[in-house]
Amino acid sequence: MREAIFATPEMAAVFSDEAFVQRLLDVEAALARAQARAGMIPPSAAEVIGRRCRADLFDLPALFREAAEAGTPVIPLVRRLTELVDAGARGYVHWGATTQDIVDTAVMLQMREGLDLLTARLLALAAVGASLAERHRRTPMAGRTMLQHAVPITFGLKAARWLALTVRLVRRLRRARGEALAVQLGGAAGTLAAMGPSGLRVLEGLAAELGLAVPELPWHAERDRVIEVASLLGMTAAAMGKIAGDLMLLGQTEVGEVSAGAESAGGRSSTMPQKRNPVEAITASAAARLAVAAVPAVLAGAVQEHERAAGGWQAEWEAVPRLFRLTASAVAWTHRALSHLEVHPERMRDNLQAAGGMIMAEALTMALAEKIGREEAYRLVQQLADRAAAAGTGLRQAAEADDRIRGILPPPALARALEVSNYLGSAETFIDRALAAYREIQETGPGQRS
Amino acid sequence: MREAIFATPEMAAVFSDEAFVQRLLDVEAALARAQARAGMIPPSAAEVIGRRCRADLFDLPALFREAAEAGTPVIPLVRRLTELVDAGARGYVHWGATTQDIVDTAVMLQMREGLDLLTARLLALAAVGASLAERHRRTPMAGRTMLQHAVPITFGLKAARWLALTVRLVRRLRRARGEALAVQLGGAAGTLAAMGPSGLRVLEGLAAELGLAVPELPWHAERDRVIEVASLLGMTAAAMGKIAGDLMLLGQTEVGEVSAGAESAGGRSSTMPQKRNPVEAITASAAARLAVAAVPAVLAGAVQEHERAAGGWQAEWEAVPRLFRLTASAVAWTHRALSHLEVHPERMRDNLQAAGGMIMAEALTMALAEKIGREEAYRLVQQLADRAAAAGTGLRQAAEADDRIRGILPPPALARALEVSNYLGSAETFIDRALAAYREIQETGPGQRS
Amino acid sequence: MREAIFATPEMAAVFSDEAFVQRLLDVEAALARAQARAGMIPPSAAEVIGRRCRADLFDLPALFREAAEAGTPVIPLVRRLTELVDAGARGYVHWGATTQDIVDTAVMLQMREGLDLLTARLLALAAVGASLAERHRRTPMAGRTMLQHAVPITFGLKAARWLALTVRLVRRLRRARGEALAVQLGGAAGTLAAMGPSGLRVLEGLAAELGLAVPELPWHAERDRVIEVASLLGMTAAAMGKIAGDLMLLGQTEVGEVSAGAESAGGRSSTMPQKRNPVEAITASAAARLAVAAVPAVLAGAVQEHERAAGGWQAEWEAVPRLFRLTASAVAWTHRALSHLEVHPERMRDNLQAAGGMIMAEALTMALAEKIGREEAYRLVQQLADRAAAAGTGLRQAAEADDRIRGILPPPALARALEVSNYLGSAETFIDRALAAYREIQETGPGQRS
Amino acid sequence: MREAIFATPEMAAVFSDEAFVQRLLDVEAALARAQARAGMIPPSAAEVIGRRCRADLFDLPALFREAAEAGTPVIPLVRRLTELVDAGARGYVHWGATTQDIVDTAVMLQMREGLDLLTARLLALAAVGASLAERHRRTPMAGRTMLQHAVPITFGLKAARWLALTVRLVRRLRRARGEALAVQLGGAAGTLAAMGPSGLRVLEGLAAELGLAVPELPWHAERDRVIEVASLLGMTAAAMGKIAGDLMLLGQTEVGEVSAGAESAGGRSSTMPQKRNPVEAITASAAARLAVAAVPAVLAGAVQEHERAAGGWQAEWEAVPRLFRLTASAVAWTHRALSHLEVHPERMRDNLQAAGGMIMAEALTMALAEKIGREEAYRLVQQLADRAAAAGTGLRQAAEADDRIRGILPPPALARALEVSNYLGSAETFIDRALAAYREIQETGPGQRS
Repeated sequence: MREAIFATPEMAAVFSDEAFVQRLLDVEAALARAQARAGMIPPSAAEVIGRRCRADLFDLPALFREAAEAGTPVIPLVRRLTELVDAGARGYVHWGATTQDIVDTAVMLQMREGLDLLTARLLALAAVGASLAERHRRTPMAGRTMLQHAVPITFGLKAARWLALTVRLVRRLRRARGEALAVQLGGAAGTLAAMGPSGLRVLEGLAAELGLAVPELPWHAERDRVIEVASLLGMTAAAMGKIAGDLMLLGQTEVGEVSAGAESAGGRSSTMPQKRNPVEAITASAAARLAVAAVPAVLAGAVQEHERAAGGWQAEWEAVPRLFRLTASAVAWTHRALSHLEVHPERMRDNLQAAGGMIMAEALTMALAEKIGREEAYRLVQQLADRAAAAGTGLRQAAEADDRIRGILPPPALARALEVSNYLGSAETFIDRALAAYREIQETGPGQRS
Repeated sequence: MREAIFATPEMAAVFSDEAFVQRLLDVEAALARAQARAGMIPPSAAEVIGRRCRADLFDLPALFREAAEAGTPVIPLVRRLTELVDAGARGYVHWGATTQDIVDTAVMLQMREGLDLLTARLLALAAVGASLAERHRRTPMAGRTMLQHAVPITFGLKAARWLALTVRLVRRLRRARGEALAVQLGGAAGTLAAMGPSGLRVLEGLAAELGLAVPELPWHAERDRVIEVASLLGMTAAAMGKIAGDLMLLGQTEVGEVSAGAESAGGRSSTMPQKRNPVEAITASAAARLAVAAVPAVLAGAVQEHERAAGGWQAEWEAVPRLFRLTASAVAWTHRALSHLEVHPERMRDNLQAAGGMIMAEALTMALAEKIGREEAYRLVQQLADRAAAAGTGLRQAAEADDRIRGILPPPALARALEVSNYLGSAETFIDRALAAYREIQETGPGQRS
Repeated sequence: MREAIFATPEMAAVFSDEAFVQRLLDVEAALARAQARAGMIPPSAAEVIGRRCRADLFDLPALFREAAEAGTPVIPLVRRLTELVDAGARGYVHWGATTQDIVDTAVMLQMREGLDLLTARLLALAAVGASLAERHRRTPMAGRTMLQHAVPITFGLKAARWLALTVRLVRRLRRARGEALAVQLGGAAGTLAAMGPSGLRVLEGLAAELGLAVPELPWHAERDRVIEVASLLGMTAAAMGKIAGDLMLLGQTEVGEVSAGAESAGGRSSTMPQKRNPVEAITASAAARLAVAAVPAVLAGAVQEHERAAGGWQAEWEAVPRLFRLTASAVAWTHRALSHLEVHPERMRDNLQAAGGMIMAEALTMALAEKIGREEAYRLVQQLADRAAAAGTGLRQAAEADDRIRGILPPPALARALEVSNYLGSAETFIDRALAAYREIQETGPGQRS
Repeated sequence: MREAIFATPEMAAVFSDEAFVQRLLDVEAALARAQARAGMIPPSAAEVIGRRCRADLFDLPALFREAAEAGTPVIPLVRRLTELVDAGARGYVHWGATTQDIVDTAVMLQMREGLDLLTARLLALAAVGASLAERHRRTPMAGRTMLQHAVPITFGLKAARWLALTVRLVRRLRRARGEALAVQLGGAAGTLAAMGPSGLRVLEGLAAELGLAVPELPWHAERDRVIEVASLLGMTAAAMGKIAGDLMLLGQTEVGEVSAGAESAGGRSSTMPQKRNPVEAITASAAARLAVAAVPAVLAGAVQEHERAAGGWQAEWEAVPRLFRLTASAVAWTHRALSHLEVHPERMRDNLQAAGGMIMAEALTMALAEKIGREEAYRLVQQLADRAAAAGTGLRQAAEADDRIRGILPPPALARALEVSNYLGSAETFIDRALAAYREIQETGPGQRS
């Protein structure tokens, strides 16, 4: 239950024990084919092995029990696979490979699927972000820095920043999919000695079979490729935490600029009948925290001993699948939260007037600065703001009542200076740039690699 | 499979979804009883509710699906429980509580069980450590610092240090069990307003029902108690990593002072017939790394908002059970590794002669220092050691051939100075102290609280 | 500059290089005295060594350079100390100790000072919290859960929860000061062989000299004591993050229930004249994040090899002082922020009316539940709340207009049910309990150990 | 002292407070120039501002004090800079920028320098690795997996794996230097409103001035670029931990295949005259642990609020410079350790015979497998190995004495099968591939970007 909250069904399926076994078998089958093509083993043996490399031919519960007891999945798997093939092929199963070759390569295949799932969902998230950016390109709201009103922005700009972030994530995940995923094949200690002179040919053949990159040499104890992917997942999760966090802050009772929407999950309180908790954003935030906190295990585990490690690598078995599940969960809950979002432009407009409309103080300063210089203008408006705050009046009222300011900015100029829509700067330009970046990654198509 | 490697069945059971539901129901039942005793609800209602608080009366798969969808387990559970009780009791289910009251208190109950399981296994580990410390109190071996020979120790002393560490962990876990586990009850925002004037009585009653401590006030967003337990688990896991690491280092092919033993799990290589990997110690080390890396999520998640949190608390649902599972796994694999250990005293003795017996250089220095002062002695032995290393002879041989040294230490004195058993200092005293500490925690009994 | 932001001057002084050298010398001097008392070295030698163990007698910059080059501070220090004492004492400097004995014991002394500084500042923070809890025990405000209004609380209750948390931290830090700080003395590999039969007496004597606990045996590679302190610091920092976070959330422009106060640091914007950033709370939050994130390095580093470690221990040299500095910074900034806080009870009262006063929905439900049962009451109020929200009217108005509700609760009863001060439950009881806990730790006095 | 151990002087200089102030001033000057070119401010003002943007014109200690008190460096700096320029330029200082624009862009400039320093030192490390790979391409040694002998490798292959890892790091750092470093400019809340219609032109102009990338839009609260760099530093540190760890393991007293070399730092013990600790590798390992553990603070801090953050960003001020210092330290100590390494091929050869030469078991299996199939061969050799181990004889001796094996492999064939140099597989091919990759990154030259 708790684990189902923090994974998507699709990602859980990619990293399930059953799928893992199938991936291990896929690698064994591809290895046999590559060895047959390299002339190392008879083609008929490869063919037989390939036909038996189907998880449904195995007693999986028994295999899992044995693996848990043995502390490793491959040894019992290879034994059972060997029993499944006929005598002629038996001697060619797993030829010259070490368990880590099979596991690492299988995990690379899982990671590829995992990256594709993440990318697809991020593209869906980007689509929602793009739509919000476009629709609200002129919806003014308070820009907030250090949790205080700063100057006005538009909700479209906020969405455009989420969008641009998401677009950059997609670009990075696509690149990692193309570059970071390499086949692992080194045999017992990375020499491929058991394959005689055919080692490199088999390595290249296996990579070709599986569509993975050919490494310069085996990398059993050099985990930079795994770190690269794990770091990107952590970055992705942190981005989801940022977006989900904004949604929760905007949805606070006193702010009320967005709300969770009728279609959104859960959210009713067990005791307070009026309450609608932003459960999707909250769960996104929780998943994002967990995913972010799951990266260090991979990073710290990457300090590995000699040719193959004693502990750090084994820890990856649990850490990497979990990181994918958690990140997928963070992306999915964020996507749901954003898709179901109700936006309240009128509330945004009202909030711009909160605290006496002080949010226009910089705008007023800039208007004055053209006449009296920035320094003097800053001082003048600061005094004005302090006075207005003390008196409990608004900035506009205080400015209109101030002789000095009236002397510099006559009423129509003052009104122009205090009009929010006149002080949005490059917001639309920035929105357009984010939308253009989004179109660029779209053109390569959701399922495609850029 | 991978998750079964990194948990014990017992700890997995304590933190299973099924057990969690039962614990939630236990809290609901105890709450009703406490409210009945406080006169808040009719005793008959408490009685009916209590009878329905059995997980086997619920359609768990449906409940889990709904909980995953809703992002929280308690709301669907309370609805179903309400449906199960008769009309007279219906209105009294979950009276005045908030979901977090139920979840936090249920988790406290799970943590108590978890701490008991850990303590029991640590006591079993301590028993093995004590037996090794006793049996090998005079088995000399090389003391190693910065991965270099330093001066001789005994294997008993090494085991006594593992033992003393384990004893300290048991003491801390027992204390935490007694002090850190408090009931949670505050209602919607920590005032217990829905319980009218009976709030404190119900809080105390609930604590008494469940054997948990009464907090000063609700602590929904102050997670120090959870951090306290999580930190101890991390400390426990780090200790296991230390012990398992020593076992792996001692078992290296060139060192060979311990080996994995015939009863130990797995360890055969898929490709190298001679190999016996120390799988138990390796898996202990992997589990320990994962557990250590699981603490920060709890710690960072403890920065929570206002009266009840949006994200940090929800993350605990996954983080805390996982931390217990991983720590239990680390302790269990370490215990297995230590129980199955084969110790090779002869190899320890041989290794003391490695590198020319240079390990006795400090002993020689101290013997000389009595005559010529420590500074001069140090210089003399350093030169001797350098000379012996360059010549490829041993320290003894070089010392015997050195006129100056012979002048200070005649042959019998030199022999005495170079005899390992004469240079073990307080090793036995320390072993005795560790054993005494162990006996002290034993007297309270494995299942008892100290 | 950036480092000065994230430390207090006092804590920086405790962990400065200069103070560290003095602490190392303190340990060398105490060791000599303990050895003299044990009859191992001449009293006159101990006396001479003691007189030279003053950092101002050393060329510190040269020492620091040499230490940085050598990767360790003690070896050059001992050489220089040896040069400083006369010939008669020279041979007795650092007798039988290893560098780690000196460093670990010196760090224990620093940690004791550090814990005292933290405790004193936490007591100051508790005093502010207690004063707020007392003063605002009847100041109503919105209780917020998942960043949404839940039910009313008082600001005094919120402060009481901060207070109770702070009190628990003080208790834990005091206990750790008394129990976790132990002397380190084992010589080269933990046998104290170089001290002959006097080992244990010297160990006990050194502990007595320095007021530290006597461990069962040396603990060079078993770092549970260091983890214990580090975990408490992380817990302390997380608590500060929680308090500072609440202050920032309460100070948001739309919430405005607290503000940073005229005496508080910084906070003016470089560009927005009206802005007062809550710089103290922000910096507290930043320091807390850094401190929380500094714990795992200590925890992960605790997996150490054999009798003395190669890497993990050395990492502590940087990690532990930094953790103390960051935690001190988090506590100090939180204390400043809370001390300078301006509280706006009228704004709290206004906000209770935000969102149509829906915060009283649970109160209304409970009032109805007495008549029609909780289930039915919940349904009724949920419909009412939804209707009121859709109509944009308040809860009170909707309730008054609802025939069914009027039938159950006549106007005076309805008014009572919707009166905030009638729905604060056990808030004052809880405040009193927190204040009592505070008085209890106070009685032992700021500088005393409980 | 302790901080000097964990930084290089060069990297400490790049991230010193003084250098930071200069970088802040560089950004202010470039901003003025870009604004002048965009026609926003008079060229003469930009010229005057540019001339005053020199750190040596400022009272730095006073500035640092004020910054620490204010919790931010830019506000006092801008005030002082404003005082330094004449009246005509005064109003144009820091025009339309927010403090975070200046800080983030200055940090980007520091990160560029930092990446260049790291890249240069990694290239130096790669050069040593390449030389070792080449020189020892046929130096056989034991390949070790899970800390046990596996099959033979060469020391050249081990070095080639370190080399290939280092080469991949250089490639990634160069790419990040080119892509991840973007200018920050958004004004108060990311709209550049204070720059009127010139916003985008100034943004592009500033980027051109400083040689940084133009982002789609401001990224104050979207820290993916910072995470990208931080992740790479963590990956780099983990790689150093791996290399340093191998050196320490190879240098253990019983293994003795490498040693620290006469030129290496420190290493003498304060009490054991014979001891030479591998201080450089140990310190590399310690620095690597600290650096790896420093990444999560950046990652977790990246969940930031709204348009500019309250806490997470401020934490970066300390976290990012420290991460650069620690990583530089890890690389430098690893480089020193590897440069000073003494390699002992004879000891490598001896160790291949440890444990009865069992390391050739797989080779023997493969030789037998050609005749009797792999399965049968595996079983045969496993029995042989067990028998040899029980009898305490070597594998060769046991094989020669075994009738069955003699029947399959006549003496010359058996001798061939057990000859290490016949069982090195693709080791040389892999070395060549690593060297080729190294030459490829070299061609772009140490100071150049690829």
